[in-house]
Amino acid sequence: MSDILKSIKQPKDVKKLPLTKLMELAAETRERIVEVVSQTGGHIAPSLGAVEIAIALLKIFDLNKDKVVWDVGHQSYAWKILTGRNKRFDTLRTLDGISGFTNRDESPYDAFTTGHSSTSISAALGMACAAELQDEEAHHIAVIGDGALTGGMSFEALNHTGHIQPNRFLVILNDNAMSISKNVGGLQKYMARMMTSKSYNTLKQQIWDLSHNLPTRIRWHFIYGARKVEESMMNILVPNIIFEDLGFKYLGPIDGHDLKQLTSFLKRIRDNMVGPVLLHVVTQKGKGYPPAEQDASLFHGVGPFESASGKQKCAGSPSWNDVFGKKLCALAEGNQDIVAITAAMTVGTGLSGFEEKYPERLFDVGIAEQHAVTMAAGMAAKGIKPFVAIYSTFLQRALDQVIHDVALPRLPVVFCIDRAGLVGEDGATHHGVFDLSYLGAVPGLTILAPSTAEELEAMLDWAAQYMDGAVAIRYPRGTATCQGEEVTDFQPGIAKLISKEGKIGLIGVGDAFHIAQKVADLLTEKGHPCRLIDLRSVKPLDTKLLSDTADECSHIFTFETNSIIGGAGTSIVQLLCDKPCRIVNFGYPDSFVPHGKIELLNERLGFTPAALTQKILDLIEP
Amino acid sequence: MSDILKSIKQPKDVKKLPLTKLMELAAETRERIVEVVSQTGGHIAPSLGAVEIAIALLKIFDLNKDKVVWDVGHQSYAWKILTGRNKRFDTLRTLDGISGFTNRDESPYDAFTTGHSSTSISAALGMACAAELQDEEAHHIAVIGDGALTGGMSFEALNHTGHIQPNRFLVILNDNAMSISKNVGGLQKYMARMMTSKSYNTLKQQIWDLSHNLPTRIRWHFIYGARKVEESMMNILVPNIIFEDLGFKYLGPIDGHDLKQLTSFLKRIRDNMVGPVLLHVVTQKGKGYPPAEQDASLFHGVGPFESASGKQKCAGSPSWNDVFGKKLCALAEGNQDIVAITAAMTVGTGLSGFEEKYPERLFDVGIAEQHAVTMAAGMAAKGIKPFVAIYSTFLQRALDQVIHDVALPRLPVVFCIDRAGLVGEDGATHHGVFDLSYLGAVPGLTILAPSTAEELEAMLDWAAQYMDGAVAIRYPRGTATCQGEEVTDFQPGIAKLISKEGKIGLIGVGDAFHIAQKVADLLTEKGHPCRLIDLRSVKPLDTKLLSDTADECSHIFTFETNSIIGGAGTSIVQLLCDKPCRIVNFGYPDSFVPHGKIELLNERLGFTPAALTQKILDLIEP
Repeated sequence: MSDILKSIKQPKDVKKLPLTKLMELAAETRERIVEVVSQTGGHIAPSLGAVEIAIALLKIFDLNKDKVVWDVGHQSYAWKILTGRNKRFDTLRTLDGISGFTNRDESPYDAFTTGHSSTSISAALGMACAAELQDEEAHHIAVIGDGALTGGMSFEALNHTGHIQPNRFLVILNDNAMSISKNVGGLQKYMARMMTSKSYNTLKQQIWDLSHNLPTRIRWHFIYGARKVEESMMNILVPNIIFEDLGFKYLGPIDGHDLKQLTSFLKRIRDNMVGPVLLHVVTQKGKGYPPAEQDASLFHGVGPFESASGKQKCAGSPSWNDVFGKKLCALAEGNQDIVAITAAMTVGTGLSGFEEKYPERLFDVGIAEQHAVTMAAGMAAKGIKPFVAIYSTFLQRALDQVIHDVALPRLPVVFCIDRAGLVGEDGATHHGVFDLSYLGAVPGLTILAPSTAEELEAMLDWAAQYMDGAVAIRYPRGTATCQGEEVTDFQPGIAKLISKEGKIGLIGVGDAFHIAQKVADLLTEKGHPCRLIDLRSVKPLDTKLLSDTADECSHIFTFETNSIIGGAGTSIVQLLCDKPCRIVNFGYPDSFVPHGKIELLNERLGFTPAALTQKILDLIEP
Repeated sequence: MSDILKSIKQPKDVKKLPLTKLMELAAETRERIVEVVSQTGGHIAPSLGAVEIAIALLKIFDLNKDKVVWDVGHQSYAWKILTGRNKRFDTLRTLDGISGFTNRDESPYDAFTTGHSSTSISAALGMACAAELQDEEAHHIAVIGDGALTGGMSFEALNHTGHIQPNRFLVILNDNAMSISKNVGGLQKYMARMMTSKSYNTLKQQIWDLSHNLPTRIRWHFIYGARKVEESMMNILVPNIIFEDLGFKYLGPIDGHDLKQLTSFLKRIRDNMVGPVLLHVVTQKGKGYPPAEQDASLFHGVGPFESASGKQKCAGSPSWNDVFGKKLCALAEGNQDIVAITAAMTVGTGLSGFEEKYPERLFDVGIAEQHAVTMAAGMAAKGIKPFVAIYSTFLQRALDQVIHDVALPRLPVVFCIDRAGLVGEDGATHHGVFDLSYLGAVPGLTILAPSTAEELEAMLDWAAQYMDGAVAIRYPRGTATCQGEEVTDFQPGIAKLISKEGKIGLIGVGDAFHIAQKVADLLTEKGHPCRLIDLRSVKPLDTKLLSDTADECSHIFTFETNSIIGGAGTSIVQLLCDKPCRIVNFGYPDSFVPHGKIELLNERLGFTPAALTQKILDLIEP
């Protein structure tokens, strides 16, 4: 069956194939995606939806010079398979294997390194401007989903592109929102095709060229008039005006699984179009794999599953975001002012239950982290108590809003920072290892890190009634440790002393407390009893307990799932630097951590109880 | 002359005035603005342009419950004068005086604390949603300039507002781009008025209400059809479709200096409109003050000037951004690949000369910092060498892009971080005191801080040819110290040892080196000779020199114009924490620094050579 796919070693092998073979190739590529992702997990639904787009791009464009930027990169599996990575594709998202997103280090056909949303148009525009400066006649193409289009920087980039008017610049809007897919019809197909025809574009170009000779003021009237004529001719049923207003030529919507149509449009765009073009392509998420077609949300990003049935494995114990979601529901029941805000991550951040129970108090703003944070500030300014649930890596998008809109006016917004620490298979773009570093200097921000489910609950309890400023609570991906009893002694600025023996101080931050605890056990076995602390409050620090510990210990070791630069350990060093006690910080290194299972990554980084214990023994038993 | 203005003690005093008196009030308010800003400096042109908007809002809305959010806040001087702050207005931008932006701490009529661009719609939407939850019937109004509208988060907010469809929600687009102001005409005035009339809106509302009973698919066709009818009726000449597409009712453009028209529109909107409304108002920057009308850019934000002539004082010595701009021109002459990118700050960042010389290599992306950084990454991916010139406080907007799009793929983008440290009169929202903290943990980023003009030149020289990763160079606002000879010994990771006497180590970072130097002189006078170091390279640190210094000194003191949390001093403490030498960091405190002259702020913060010397003496001579 997979005969054609086997013959594809590089992009030019796709170019040779006739249309019928391209269709077979699409089917084989889908099969390969399902085969691998059922083993490795991954973003299967988006990638299944973009198979024909990838094939059509490879067929029509010259990848030796033309550049394709896949937004987010999670729809690029077909692209990867067809650009020389089929053989290694079964290593998808595993340590040292193929990345789940596009990556410049992986292939010359990955024009840009991606993972976060909404960057593709900016990157492609940069490349197009570079090509212009270098007198190079290459095409630059951004493929972006309708979800990613809501991110503000997409708009910044569309707006700027419309201003610059680069040639050979194409944005493919990969639209898989079901409500729009029904609009595809014969009339529009005809009209869109007409727009790409040479004569029509020549006419349009002549009008624009002509207008350049007019004084600015008159020019606008002229263009406006010309556009009105054009619109009355062309746009009767095409909801394209927003892109045209921004300076793009809009084509579509067309069926993104119809290879004949796709290749014919792309060919015309390649050969005829002047100025930036937006091609609106309608696709179905999960296309060609029935379980994913039926529940595209469930199959957006998945763990391993049974390929025949699509059955996914159960998660088991409560995850951190479950604990968060349930607790927030409980708090919301007693406090009408509590609302939850998420940026397109209702499910991921554990807010599904909240949404069901309090739909009018759940605000999903789409992929728009900046707006999410400032909107929360606006609500807090009116006495509402917003909990912004956001992944650590995505909060990077809203640092300015945290500082300027929340912290400066001391508004009581609570940031529930999910996926803090390593996230595993999603890799470098998604690990949440910088939040303590970039939030540490924000004045007045209380920063907390629970080590157990019950601590998280206690922190949320406290945060819900704290009205004097903003709070950030960070917790990781995955299963939460339950201690089995309610935490009643939580206070910001107070750490929990777990054991008070010996001269070795071990301070665990959040989830990394459990590593500290295991290290304590191992060190005790080796004859070095430990003073073990669950830090709980990263800012403010428990200066009294930490200071006493430094006075009474020969060594202090800190453990955290953040970069060692600017993390909790750094603050502790800064606090205690005058003490004679020796302090060493353990955390993630000053380099990007690759993708792979969290356990394997931690092993490679030496961030395991055994490896850390050995490091400590080397230091205390020189 | 200023009789009416004198009678205005609070918003309700404006409500009482008839139209003719409102016009006189506008003139008096303008006079007051010019009178004060000629003394204090400030954002005079934007505020002169928004006088009538402020008056009309105060006349029509009930400020006891309705909220007005002024985007950026720099057009709000009239608002401040008319909401109980006229008497204190002459303290504008001075220490403990009236802030140059809106500030919740200053007045209950400043609904939101602002300073950065593009936050107003998000904040107002948050307030509107809060009011909805609280069953409160208040109006929420964002006043936003056309420039601020290009910031991505404005789009995120418009998009989300269109989705939510809040009632009593108004965005006033204060449009002062000259190209658009000419479009104001009788026909549009008529049509826009028609749109606010009760009967028309009732009809429109009925159509929307009706459509809610239809199945989703049909509903879209229905709405689309209805809109087409409406458009053909209404929108023949009105370029409003982009806002309508986003779900707003669009009115305008109208003359923003015509109080009769403004108040009449606002009244109709207040009484009749359902769903979010965008009112497009055309104003003239600098209106009513001829020198500012003639050169609105020059008078956007100014220092003190002669009020009669508008003559501004000369700057004198070369500023840091002059040095940067000139050096970049010189580098660009020899290297075709060098480009400059700025986010609406060509003049502010010293790039006017570059723009003149290399217009095709200067990319002003508008207020769009995220896009600026990722576009730079796209260019760098194609072998171009981009220098992104950006203020420290605004780079907060693009942290994610620095990490994800530049640092992760090790692209050789150079960030020229202007206004690092205190900026003075613009205050807390604009001080650049966090950049070292939020950039410190970014893997692979080289971070440099020059202490002299020649060091900056040497760093730019080095950065221009460095292709293995990104570089950030931070320098302050104001006059650069010239050392009078070329710096030939700059290398990243190497600090400069200035003097090697005694047991007190003083390490100066960037501009703060000069404070360290003065402290060294004072301490030497007191019998404590110092080992003085110009750090130059914040990341990587000069581990050898710093380590040696710690070995040979009893104390090390670090000086920097960044927050002491996560700054260069923190990294030095983390590096040297095992040394017996005592280390103390001097920098800005863990709190927001207010507005006022930099010298006065430093005095208050104890960040002067004299105060720091005394602190050091207290520590070393206990």
